[in-house]
Parts: sequence; structure tokens; C-alpha cells
Amino acid sequence: MAFSVGVMSAMYLTKGITGAHLNPAVTLSFCVLGQVPWGRLVPYFLSQLLGAYMASGLVYLVYYDAIMDFSGGVLTVYGPNETASIFATYPSEYMSLGGSFLDQVVGTGMLMLCILCLGEKRNTPAPSELIPPIVAVIVLGISMSMSANCGAAINPARDLGPRLFTLTAGWGTEVFTCYNYWFWIPLVAPLIGGVIGTFMYLIFIHWHLPDPDPPESLSNLSTISDKIKQPNNMWDNEVEIKAAYL
Amino acid sequence: MAFSVGVMSAMYLTKGITGAHLNPAVTLSFCVLGQVPWGRLVPYFLSQLLGAYMASGLVYLVYYDAIMDFSGGVLTVYGPNETASIFATYPSEYMSLGGSFLDQVVGTGMLMLCILCLGEKRNTPAPSELIPPIVAVIVLGISMSMSANCGAAINPARDLGPRLFTLTAGWGTEVFTCYNYWFWIPLVAPLIGGVIGTFMYLIFIHWHLPDPDPPESLSNLSTISDKIKQPNNMWDNEVEIKAAYL
Amino acid sequence: MAFSVGVMSAMYLTKGITGAHLNPAVTLSFCVLGQVPWGRLVPYFLSQLLGAYMASGLVYLVYYDAIMDFSGGVLTVYGPNETASIFATYPSEYMSLGGSFLDQVVGTGMLMLCILCLGEKRNTPAPSELIPPIVAVIVLGISMSMSANCGAAINPARDLGPRLFTLTAGWGTEVFTCYNYWFWIPLVAPLIGGVIGTFMYLIFIHWHLPDPDPPESLSNLSTISDKIKQPNNMWDNEVEIKAAYL
Amino acid sequence: MAFSVGVMSAMYLTKGITGAHLNPAVTLSFCVLGQVPWGRLVPYFLSQLLGAYMASGLVYLVYYDAIMDFSGGVLTVYGPNETASIFATYPSEYMSLGGSFLDQVVGTGMLMLCILCLGEKRNTPAPSELIPPIVAVIVLGISMSMSANCGAAINPARDLGPRLFTLTAGWGTEVFTCYNYWFWIPLVAPLIGGVIGTFMYLIFIHWHLPDPDPPESLSNLSTISDKIKQPNNMWDNEVEIKAAYL
Repeated sequence: MAFSVGVMSAMYLTKGITGAHLNPAVTLSFCVLGQVPWGRLVPYFLSQLLGAYMASGLVYLVYYDAIMDFSGGVLTVYGPNETASIFATYPSEYMSLGGSFLDQVVGTGMLMLCILCLGEKRNTPAPSELIPPIVAVIVLGISMSMSANCGAAINPARDLGPRLFTLTAGWGTEVFTCYNYWFWIPLVAPLIGGVIGTFMYLIFIHWHLPDPDPPESLSNLSTISDKIKQPNNMWDNEVEIKAAYL
Repeated sequence: MAFSVGVMSAMYLTKGITGAHLNPAVTLSFCVLGQVPWGRLVPYFLSQLLGAYMASGLVYLVYYDAIMDFSGGVLTVYGPNETASIFATYPSEYMSLGGSFLDQVVGTGMLMLCILCLGEKRNTPAPSELIPPIVAVIVLGISMSMSANCGAAINPARDLGPRLFTLTAGWGTEVFTCYNYWFWIPLVAPLIGGVIGTFMYLIFIHWHLPDPDPPESLSNLSTISDKIKQPNNMWDNEVEIKAAYL
Repeated sequence: MAFSVGVMSAMYLTKGITGAHLNPAVTLSFCVLGQVPWGRLVPYFLSQLLGAYMASGLVYLVYYDAIMDFSGGVLTVYGPNETASIFATYPSEYMSLGGSFLDQVVGTGMLMLCILCLGEKRNTPAPSELIPPIVAVIVLGISMSMSANCGAAINPARDLGPRLFTLTAGWGTEVFTCYNYWFWIPLVAPLIGGVIGTFMYLIFIHWHLPDPDPPESLSNLSTISDKIKQPNNMWDNEVEIKAAYL
Repeated sequence: MAFSVGVMSAMYLTKGITGAHLNPAVTLSFCVLGQVPWGRLVPYFLSQLLGAYMASGLVYLVYYDAIMDFSGGVLTVYGPNETASIFATYPSEYMSLGGSFLDQVVGTGMLMLCILCLGEKRNTPAPSELIPPIVAVIVLGISMSMSANCGAAINPARDLGPRLFTLTAGWGTEVFTCYNYWFWIPLVAPLIGGVIGTFMYLIFIHWHLPDPDPPESLSNLSTISDKIKQPNNMWDNEVEIKAAYL
């Protein structure tokens, strides 16, 4: 029991510190903003998914002894010795479907609002060299405040990749069927939440800012989108998501 | 019980991390300093209040399942299953009225002292791009050290907005009448504390600094007051306070 | 009991975050380095002491209700309901006199080593605008690792000022006589530790650095000593130490 | 019991905050990269080891009273009152040999990946003046997530030095023979993991970056390696590792 708290709180903390930079919901939002070409959305999503899957495999190997010791070798989704939530997210018992959906929409919307303002020159932008730790703190904040409800995935790849891994590694189809096929929530809701957050940012903040340099200020957003574009190599991708897990 | 600790500590932490940037007590202090026109004080306060009210509504929706599960559907201000303190602040049982008042005055005075020195060029100013995280750490520090007494509102809007929300959302008039109409403390004391803190800053620090560039150094303060002026759109306002809640 | 843990851990945390910048041990070390004139050492110490005394008074007022509730009105140095350690530091039961002394010498020596290297241009200096949070993290680190032994005062004023306050506020002479007149340890040992740390820095680091600009590099240290010189007004002083307490 | 948790968690936290900058695994990786001459590898390792040994001695002296109180004077590697893990790292009961090895390889590989990208100009580099706190946060993250398995040494000197100290200070040969001569894991695995991490960085990230200034960009890495080169004085070395322990 104490061990499970130790491992989980440790993962929980560093997930925020190292950041979940590779998020299909963020990629989709940047596509909507015109910062990332639409054609890259699906390849990015697949490589993000593969990265998350492989990272889950590494976590499984490193913690194999611990998982076997804690679960007694029985890999389950429910019960006091469940180990599935080390990988994918699952809702608390009391969550309704609508509540889960709203939770993920709001969490991802918050994330987009917080991220977009960091690169906005006409606002008070953060120093571009320090954006990674600031985004990490934002993700940490959202994770800490929202994971009580349903694990604060706010990232379809971060949730589906590990879920697919647990499916293939011995947890069985329960990882998809449990809680009445709940798995689609962290897959779909963050995409919607990210786009809503992006439009709220445009409508209520970006369009109200003073307008000295219209073309350039839009391209400021690309300082962040550049960070999304970087990992056009899926191994690179894997490495970063892996860091987000350990 | 464990759940309540989880949700509360999570909110508590992120309240500090994302910061409570929109504070009528700070706005009033900047009016006193001449950095914000007096005519904007009331509109700002109203939009800050509306933002806090709407943010509380969002928190209520996202945590609706959790609140209903924890409270058994009975929304109360007192008792082990009380949920009112998720929104507004309430004093600990042992607090006297004078103690509560002093607590809020000192807390907000500290906040103003810490904020004002950050933008003071003749002192050692913080890099303006990094003022948001530094203010967040200050708020976190004050929240952690002072919330044991009466919740460390140090912001009239942050307290009255959620209190009005709980009044209308089912907690009843008890949110105002409880603890002998205690609600006016976090409404009035921070305003007084903020102004006292501002004068202490002027008298004991600002007026003693070397004076190479008198007109400019005063206007340095406006780097912070600019951050107050920005949200002249109430939705913008709402978004930031909302972030302070989740 | 839970309350005491809450208040203490909160103070403990923020003591580090806001930093204990006004330290006679640091002032003495800068006198030894020739960065602060010797004639200022005693006036500085007295104002640091007065500041700490007044800050303790403010803490006492703000937490008066809490202290009375927790102690049942009996202000003691020993026992489960002791409240003296909210103000001054006291050793753990198992500490020997020599161990306490060494603990304070090592703690303050570490502090000086860590502080001195921050302003050293020929080393990798920290950005001067960000020295305050970095020093705060150093103090937090030393506090967390060393307070188990005897409270990690590493500052004579931070310990003697509150101890004098508790003497006059009802805790009685026990605050000085307890643990076999232990009070002189955090008064004397940090001064010795600070000077030892300074010499270790000079001998093992400073004198081995490349030497392109000898006169300037010494004066680099003054970027930190300036921070010590600033508060030549005791109220200013009080405000900062106060912040270190709450 | 409570005391042991206090001391251990305190050390654990600050170990990360102050950082473990002097790591033979990192030195070896920089030798492989050609940033550090091979001839310096062994002298560096020896001084790192000596520093860690002497730092352990200081920790032993400062916490002598606490260690004697907690252990009852019997210095052991096993059991509820064991004190050996204050110094060197030991695996959890459930760890297999292969799992321990993989754990250390992955942990040190992660460390190298995270460190190398910080100084890479063609990527988004961190500000060089703020690399120390960023590395400290990385080490904190790795320590928190990975110490449940086998203590997250990820540094041969940080583990062997204290282990040699405990051998000579009364814990006996058990510190080497325990867990079936497990001590070689944190000695060998980090070296291999560091080199693997370095090659993964080169293959999957460095060689894919745009190439405007090939010779310079390689030498960018030396901004970090300079930090390794600095302590060519073993006392200096000792001081830094000591800080990593307290």
C-alpha cells in the first residue's frame, strides 16, 4: 500500500515537472490556428501514440518487479491492488459520464489558454528559453487540481498509448470496457476542450490586444508551435513522452 | 475524508501556483499610488466579482459529482461533510473577530509589500517577464502560512464571488450569516491591509532609495499596474480567476 | 495536534521561500571579506535583532487565537502543547551540545558557500535579478535537511530576536535556561560557521578561478553584499524578517 | 520512526535541489563526446569518490546524535532501524538483479538526455545561467520517480563513496555483501546508461537538428562540460557533493 502511494505520487509529480509537451489536443489547436499544417495532424498523432506506447513498455520493464510484487502477479483494473492506473487514466467511482467529459474539456481548455498566452508578444510573454519549465508548472498545477476526478489525462496520446500497452501486456480488454467503455472520454474530450480553449483565447484575449504589428504577432505563436514541430522523428517523440511518464 | 483532503490540498496548491492576480485590494492600492485611475476601481471590482462568481460556477460543474458524493447531496457550511469552504473562506473555530481582521490585514499588507518591490528599478527588480511566477510563489507562501487561521482570502473578489455563488447554488444564507456574519472580514480587511502595506512600502522603502531618476522610478510601478489594467474585458478576467480556482 | 503540524509546516516552507536575507552571520562574513565596513556590523546586528523581535510580536498577534487554543493558555517550552518553538529554535531531545554546535557551524558554512558562488563572475554566476529566489531555495534546502537536529536557525538574529520576544511575552526565562542554556548555540555557532564557510570558499574555489580581472571580480561579491547593505533602516529590516516568519 | 521519515525525506528533497553535478557517468559521457579528455576520467572519478567519502563523514558527524538515537548504537543494513541507506543506496526487497540494472541504466540515460539538450543551441537551449537549477529539478524528478526501486543513485561516486565510508565507520562488510553483492549495480549501470543516453541523444536528436554551424554547435555542449571541468580541486569537489548530501 505504502509502496503504491510512493510510486504513484512520484510519477504524478514528475509527470508535471518534465511536462507533457506532445499532445494531440495541442497539435489540433495549432492546426486550427494555422500554425501547423493539417496534413501533419494524423502523422503526429500516430507518432505521439507510438511514443506513449513504447514509453509505457519501458515503465513496465523498469517497474516490472514492483508491479509484480504489489499486484501478486494479477494485473487488474479494479480493486485495491489494481495497477492499470499506473499507465492509463480511469475515473473515480463517483464520476458520471457527463462530469468526466466536462472535466477533460475544461482541463484541456485551461491548458490551451495558459500555453497560448505565454508566446503572445503583445501580452506579457514569458522568456522563450524558460517556456518549458513554465509549461511544466502549468501541467503540474492542472494535474494536481484535476486528477482527483479522472486522472487529468488532458492528452489523447498520453492516455490511449498506455491503454493500448496495458491491453497487450496482460491487463486484458477490461482496460477498454471498464466503467462502461469510459476510454473514449480522455480521447475525444481533450480535442474538443483544446479547440474551445483556443477560440476563447482568440475571442476574449488575442483580438482585444493592442495591434501594432498584426502579422508578426500571430507568428509569435509559432514559437510554441515550433516546439510541437520539432519531434518529426518518432524516437525523439518517444523519448519526451517517456520522460513524462517516469 | 481522504478525498476531501486530496481535492482541497490540490486546489490549495494550484491557487498559489497560478496566482490570484486580480485582486480589488491590489487595484485599490494602485489607485492610491496614482497608477490606476479612481474611476476604474468600481468597474474593475464588479468584473473581478463576476469573474470569481462564474469561475465558482465552473468549479461547481466540474466537481459536481465529487461534491454530491462527498456531501451526500446536503450542501452545508458546518460539519465534517461541509463543502462551502471549497468556494469561499471560513475562519477556524478558535478565531476571534479581531484576530481574523488582523490576519487579513497583515496577509494583504505582506502581499502588497512583496509585489511593489518586484517592479522597483532602484531596488533589485525582478525580470519583468518572470514576475508572474514570482508573484505566484509569493501568493503560495502567504496561502500556506496563513490559511490555517481563516483561509487566506487576501482578496475581496476571490471571497465574495464564490460566496455569492454558494448562496445561489444551494448552500443558503448560512454562507453569509455563519460565524456571526463573518463574511465582511475578507471583504474589508484586505482593502485596508493593502493600503497599509502600500504606505509602509512608500515610507520605509521607496522614499529611502537612491534617487537618480525620480519620475521614471515611480512609473516603474506601472509595469505591475499594467498587469492589473490588462483585463478590461470581464471574460478575460473570468478566465484568470477561474485558473486561480482549479 | 493536526493544527500544530499545519502551522509549523506552513511556516517552515515559507521561511525558505521568502528567505532569511538578513543574517548577522552573513554580515560578519562580508565584513571579513571587506565588502561591509566593520563599523556597521553592530548597528546591523541590533537592527536585525529588533526586526526579528518585532516580527515575532506580529506573528504572536496574528496567531494569538491559534496559540491560545492550542496551548490552552499555558505558554511552555516543553511538552506536547509547547509553543516556544514557533518562535526560536530548540534542539531535539537526542542532540548533544557538540552535535548542536557542529550542526549550526556546518549549516551556516554551507549557506555562505552557496551564496558566495552565486555572485562570482568568473564562476558561472546566477542572473543577479534572480538571486533572491535562488537564495530562497538554498535556505529552503538547508532548512529542510537540517531542521531535524536543532531547527536550522543558521542566523543569530532570527533566533535571539524571537527568543527575547518569548521571554517578554509570557514564556518566561525557560526559553533561555532550557536544555542547559542551549540558547548560545544558534547565537555563536552560525557566526563561526559563516566565517569558516567564507574562508573555505576563498581557499578552495575563489583563489583557483582564472584571473582575468582581479579587482572587478572581488567587487562582484558586492552585488550580494549590496543586498545586505540595503536595509539600513530598521523598519525595512523588520519587514523582511517578518516575511521570513509568516 | 517519524524521525527517520523526517531526515530521509529532507535529504531526499535537497539532494535534488542542490543537484548531483559531479557524476562519473556524466564525465564518461562527455569523454565519449570528446568534450572531456580521456586522461581526466580516472583522476576525476577518484576525486569525486573522495569528495563523496568525505561528505559522508561530515553527514555522519552532523547526524551522529540522531543516528545513535535512532539505531540504538547498532549500525545495520537490514531491519526497521537500519541506517546504512542514509549513505549509500540499497534495493527494495522485491527488486531482481536485472530490474535493478535496468533501473539504473534507464535513470542515468534519462539524465544524460535531459542534460545534453539543455546546452544545444540549435534546439531551444536553456539560459546558461539558469542551467544549475534546471538540472537540479531534473535530478529531483528522476530521484522522486525512480528511488522507490533502488534509491536512484544514477552516479557511481555518489554511491561508492558513502558505501566505502559506511564500511570504515562501523556498518561492516555487509554494506558490500548485502543483497547478494548488489553494490556493483549503481557502480556499473549508470556508466552504461549514461553512454546509451548520450548515443540516443546523438542519433535521434542531435543529428536531426538543422545544421547552420556544425563546429560551433558541438562545442556548445562544452558549456555543460565546463561545469564538470571546474572542480579540478578535490576540496571544491567535496564541497559540492557534500551539498548534494545534506
